[in-house]
Amino acid sequence: MAKVADKYFKTDSWKVIEEGFNPDYGKVAESIFSLGNEYMGIRGYFEEGYSKDKLIGSYFNGIYERTKPEYGHYKGITDFSEYMVNSVNYLYTRIEADGKILDLADADITDFERVLDMKNGLLTRSFVWNVSAGKRVKITFDRALSMTDVEMAMQRITATALDSDVEVAVTSGLDFGEFHMMQKKNMWNCDRKSVNVAAVAGMAIEGETINTGKKVYSACTLECLIDGVHTELNGLNCETISEEKLVATKIKLTAGKDQKIEFVKKIRNLTFKDGDSEGDYESEVKTIEAKIADASVDSIAVENFDSFVDTQAKWWDNVWKHSDIIIDGDEENQQGIRFCIFQMFQTYHGAVKGTNIGAKGLTGEAYNGNAFWDTETYCLPFFIFNNKEAAKNLLYFRYKTLDEARKRAEVLDCRGAFYPIATISGKECCDLWQHASLQLQASTGVAYGIWFYEKIFGDKEFMADYGLEMLIEISRMLVSRGDYAPDGKYGYYAVMGPDEFQMMVNNNCYTNYMGKFTLDYTVKKIDEALSANSAKFEELAKKIGYDPSEKEEFKEISEKMFIPYHEDTKIFEQHDGFFKLPHLDVDEIPITDFPLYSNWSYDRIYRNDMIKQPDVLMFMLLFNSQFSDEQLRANYDFYEPRCIHESSLSPSVHSILAAQLHKEEEAYNFFGFATRMDLDNYNRNTGEGIHTTSIAAAWMNIVYGFGGLRTDGDCIRIAPSIPKNWKGYSFKINYDDATVEVNVTKEKVNLKTTDDSKVTIQIYGNTEAIDNKGYECPLE
Amino acid sequence: MAKVADKYFKTDSWKVIEEGFNPDYGKVAESIFSLGNEYMGIRGYFEEGYSKDKLIGSYFNGIYERTKPEYGHYKGITDFSEYMVNSVNYLYTRIEADGKILDLADADITDFERVLDMKNGLLTRSFVWNVSAGKRVKITFDRALSMTDVEMAMQRITATALDSDVEVAVTSGLDFGEFHMMQKKNMWNCDRKSVNVAAVAGMAIEGETINTGKKVYSACTLECLIDGVHTELNGLNCETISEEKLVATKIKLTAGKDQKIEFVKKIRNLTFKDGDSEGDYESEVKTIEAKIADASVDSIAVENFDSFVDTQAKWWDNVWKHSDIIIDGDEENQQGIRFCIFQMFQTYHGAVKGTNIGAKGLTGEAYNGNAFWDTETYCLPFFIFNNKEAAKNLLYFRYKTLDEARKRAEVLDCRGAFYPIATISGKECCDLWQHASLQLQASTGVAYGIWFYEKIFGDKEFMADYGLEMLIEISRMLVSRGDYAPDGKYGYYAVMGPDEFQMMVNNNCYTNYMGKFTLDYTVKKIDEALSANSAKFEELAKKIGYDPSEKEEFKEISEKMFIPYHEDTKIFEQHDGFFKLPHLDVDEIPITDFPLYSNWSYDRIYRNDMIKQPDVLMFMLLFNSQFSDEQLRANYDFYEPRCIHESSLSPSVHSILAAQLHKEEEAYNFFGFATRMDLDNYNRNTGEGIHTTSIAAAWMNIVYGFGGLRTDGDCIRIAPSIPKNWKGYSFKINYDDATVEVNVTKEKVNLKTTDDSKVTIQIYGNTEAIDNKGYECPLE
Repeated sequence: MAKVADKYFKTDSWKVIEEGFNPDYGKVAESIFSLGNEYMGIRGYFEEGYSKDKLIGSYFNGIYERTKPEYGHYKGITDFSEYMVNSVNYLYTRIEADGKILDLADADITDFERVLDMKNGLLTRSFVWNVSAGKRVKITFDRALSMTDVEMAMQRITATALDSDVEVAVTSGLDFGEFHMMQKKNMWNCDRKSVNVAAVAGMAIEGETINTGKKVYSACTLECLIDGVHTELNGLNCETISEEKLVATKIKLTAGKDQKIEFVKKIRNLTFKDGDSEGDYESEVKTIEAKIADASVDSIAVENFDSFVDTQAKWWDNVWKHSDIIIDGDEENQQGIRFCIFQMFQTYHGAVKGTNIGAKGLTGEAYNGNAFWDTETYCLPFFIFNNKEAAKNLLYFRYKTLDEARKRAEVLDCRGAFYPIATISGKECCDLWQHASLQLQASTGVAYGIWFYEKIFGDKEFMADYGLEMLIEISRMLVSRGDYAPDGKYGYYAVMGPDEFQMMVNNNCYTNYMGKFTLDYTVKKIDEALSANSAKFEELAKKIGYDPSEKEEFKEISEKMFIPYHEDTKIFEQHDGFFKLPHLDVDEIPITDFPLYSNWSYDRIYRNDMIKQPDVLMFMLLFNSQFSDEQLRANYDFYEPRCIHESSLSPSVHSILAAQLHKEEEAYNFFGFATRMDLDNYNRNTGEGIHTTSIAAAWMNIVYGFGGLRTDGDCIRIAPSIPKNWKGYSFKINYDDATVEVNVTKEKVNLKTTDDSKVTIQIYGNTEAIDNKGYECPLE
Repeated sequence: MAKVADKYFKTDSWKVIEEGFNPDYGKVAESIFSLGNEYMGIRGYFEEGYSKDKLIGSYFNGIYERTKPEYGHYKGITDFSEYMVNSVNYLYTRIEADGKILDLADADITDFERVLDMKNGLLTRSFVWNVSAGKRVKITFDRALSMTDVEMAMQRITATALDSDVEVAVTSGLDFGEFHMMQKKNMWNCDRKSVNVAAVAGMAIEGETINTGKKVYSACTLECLIDGVHTELNGLNCETISEEKLVATKIKLTAGKDQKIEFVKKIRNLTFKDGDSEGDYESEVKTIEAKIADASVDSIAVENFDSFVDTQAKWWDNVWKHSDIIIDGDEENQQGIRFCIFQMFQTYHGAVKGTNIGAKGLTGEAYNGNAFWDTETYCLPFFIFNNKEAAKNLLYFRYKTLDEARKRAEVLDCRGAFYPIATISGKECCDLWQHASLQLQASTGVAYGIWFYEKIFGDKEFMADYGLEMLIEISRMLVSRGDYAPDGKYGYYAVMGPDEFQMMVNNNCYTNYMGKFTLDYTVKKIDEALSANSAKFEELAKKIGYDPSEKEEFKEISEKMFIPYHEDTKIFEQHDGFFKLPHLDVDEIPITDFPLYSNWSYDRIYRNDMIKQPDVLMFMLLFNSQFSDEQLRANYDFYEPRCIHESSLSPSVHSILAAQLHKEEEAYNFFGFATRMDLDNYNRNTGEGIHTTSIAAAWMNIVYGFGGLRTDGDCIRIAPSIPKNWKGYSFKINYDDATVEVNVTKEKVNLKTTDDSKVTIQIYGNTEAIDNKGYECPLE
């Protein structure tokens, strides 16, 4: 069941390039050309309108709607969902030439090219439109989002008549009228609207979601330049448009032959969401409203389009300086991994406190824009080693939503906090109870995230203010959700581990293992807190009603936790009875049966020893130093052949562990499409949005896999290897206030810091002090 | 967690009596006073209208609607449901006296009495209405359904002014306007309507369901009698009413003091449902339409109300003659068991081919009017020994819906036929996949039903025409749904047995046992068919593409079927790992936690060794002769303390087996409320409708429990015992063309046939020939 590339974009180490337009790839390209700055994200759709298949997706982190399915239910079963809601199309444009409306679905065009430049985040699209015989117009669309002033976006449309004068009409505005793709309806009420024309057009519109009362206030100016010269709009033929969910300005003019007509739109989008002060929001809206009323070129921003792009280039330059991965001898993976890093920074970089990472980032509506346990398990390592602030913000999201997790625990008849499997606001949004009620890994994943963050940064303040409270609440859940077997062993019953193809099992090894880890870690942190600053801890204890006997309970249950390990074979049994399940040879499943969720009867998936994704191998990666290579090999050899990798995260985990076991061919095969999963649309669903969490896994794949980075021991360790067809590669980790560059060639490994700092790293088992003079050793 | 009676009705051995009206019991009484004749059922609602809590329920067997919940799903998960739809209120009445509208919610009444007579099926309600000071009107409502001409119903309303003349207005009609309780909407379109007044009022209306196109044509005549004398309606002040979903006639007259004013309504209801010919239905409708147009007293029926009731009395007399149970010394249980038998015959007696028994019969809308595996497992024994035709019809329903079961198997990736857990039309209507996809007992239950029916009646024609085809298709499912464990044993994975508190388990003992039984029985029947009439079998084989190798597969899998039995303890393990589950002391659960489905987090139910209802004990009852008392005792003693009897069917099974094990006190305690579950509203939900299948279990409880009847061996066996506080009891079984009466006293057991026939019965292990002279032996 090998996945096959569907290559469409041109390979280039710093750019993503589409040459010529193929409508079959319309939505895939929309996803790939998404821009984002954590605060907002916009798909690469054709802003001028397009009558074929498309998703005019414009999203804001934390702006979501709520739905109530009509579905009878039992206690603890979620009867609603929250989803990231498609918002204002602030690039809204319509273009007419000689009365003909531009629509790439049927327009006669040549020289189509679209380029995303990963050095500055600029997306450019250009083509020549054959309006009619001997009437060609060259049109270029540029767009960029601000990475520093995240409410800002800019758009530039340039039109030049190539053959003779053309009558041009351009409509540009702000549109809340798009439907949500999954819900098939529009969820916005728009009461506040303004549009006026002076030196430029000034427009603003506010949308409010129907059920959740979230607000987006979108404002813009629209300037016209002719041959680079600002042209007052009130001197042109302008028409203002104000409809139910749309404001726009229509400008008609004659584009003389070879004249460069430019429309520059500066946009500012404000949001009102959970935790925001309505007063602050209102006063910001009022300030902008007043500026827009002036409708001067500088109402939204003083920068022009080019200087705006320069600002972004500087920001990205810093990113690449600290986070670039260079692959020598494999341009496809080079482009792929840069695309991954670019997307990771677009999705999340610590700009907005209190949000999380949706499964598709801000690039599409699949998975409802919900965040999963992927955040701590797959995304956090990337941020830990590239952007501390982002890592901290992600964990802070869990603290901010701790009360919701407490409520969820209560409805599940547990004590403490039970973190949701899928969420936006902190509420459990997964209406499949078999996942929402049976999967404990979101909760233990939060504990793991705290542990990982503390291990790398030693942030005692975070631990005292947020971390320990979460740990105690999660541990309370863990000692109330499980039970004792007749033999006195403690375990979790009726659970689903990471492997979602074994639904309702007892003593899932991952769940028990992570439960034990969480309890042990909590006990340790309580002890530390007691000795470090006992007054502070007393305050916390009082706040959450913590009793000293609880620590004893945590300890006792941890001691009695059942870890199903078979000493003779060195294999962990995934859950009670796993070894007695009927065996299914996964290679015998016809390729047409995939994805199994669509083609197999739902229950059929759960009747054998096939697994969807790593489960035992997962905790052996997370706590790698706890296991010998012999143990790892035994479990890898047992579980890998049973795994069908139906989760997009599965191959990377296998690749990393295969690299550790010197299974070089397997490691590279599993790495295979990791960096290019979306660029080459391996899963044939990139059109729905980017696989954001897989992108994080691709980074791990190189750094943890070939780089051999391990971070769970006392000191961080690396043990690089190199794929056969690479000449060399380098990656950077930001650690202990230093940026460490690791260069690997066929012969040797070189480590150095990029500034004056020194760090201690274990390489191939030898502890070394690394500075900017570098350390070199042969490749093992 | 003892259940407590909520006694409201007066005890009487042949009647159910309500003395005085208490609105708190309004819906309970509506359910208890339901009338039914298998074809249609009507709740005991106040036909004159009632503004407090009520359910104006009027149902027709096989008349159902369909709904599509908006719920994303996977393959094999039902995304719609079918439900018995509330239909025409053919008793629709409104009564005014001196301009005041009668409504028992606020009317000043005395002498309220309601009586259901189980000797003739007549329901009578009467009271004195104090219209105003010194203006009393006595009103009596009578209603009955025909048991022989099942489309027919009659209603009589009698009013007498007791003090002085009263101006009376009575509106009577046919109303399709009621809402469905669960769906909270009306599902009928009514295009065909007529109402005219001549000697009597003639009215008719047709309703058609919106989604399923089922039709009900309801027609009636309404006659007025004054002091027993027919009074032409066109001589009175009459008004005809025709609204969107209602036709009615309003009659105004002065009721002189002591004058007896009677309104007699004769109703005929035609239905058009699955399998009916539209042409036949239309021609019947036309015939009645023509008669109604005449509006003569005899348009619907020649019988008057009293003779109509006499006809029913004769029918019921025959029922009691063959099926009565007499309990000496316990009037409450006497009334209770008669009520059960009465309800069983009302619900189903073989009048209509191709229908089944809904969980609430025709008395309410809970469980959507769907039929469950209860039909074969709990209801069939009653019909087998009381009404062969009904038993055969029930099995015929499964044959009629075999194609739907084939389609269901296909969508579940199985071969053969997979019978639905909940159904009306044969389609799976349970939208909880964990039941619909994981429970195999509906299918093996059909095989059991066929086996049982054949065992008692030896109906070779049924087997050749219907039975064997079903058996082969079920066996095909059984050999495709299961799988082999690594040790070569065959079993079923990811299943739910009868015990619904262990959801998704492997090798459920009941499922494996019943699977093996079904395969063995099918092989035997194939062999018999081959030797008996091989041409007929060849025809079947050709029709269903049966290959001789299939029989070998059935045999092989049966041989390898894993039955988890522990020789040392003699206990069957309910499923893989059951003995290792955490133990829950069910007696420790606070009574306020019940029902657990409402008060516990859904998943919490599934994390321990608590069981909802018998599972291992169930097959030990069905195939009782296969097990020694020692085995039975070991399993009873192990499983009973773990059972919370959350299914209303559970206590009867335990009572029957406790009786067998001479646990007399337990047997009587579990019997406890079996016969009076609804009369005394033990589950506090009788208002939703009668527990029809529990009623069947109550019968089993006496006949199989105290009577000790067993029918799975070569000869039917009885082994009576008697509860301590009974003086004696008798029951009848209709078997081998004879009616056998079994009389049990404290001292002895007497068996005799009630006519000339002779039957062979094993009593306390001795095989005896029984005739009408009787056989007597001491009670053991």
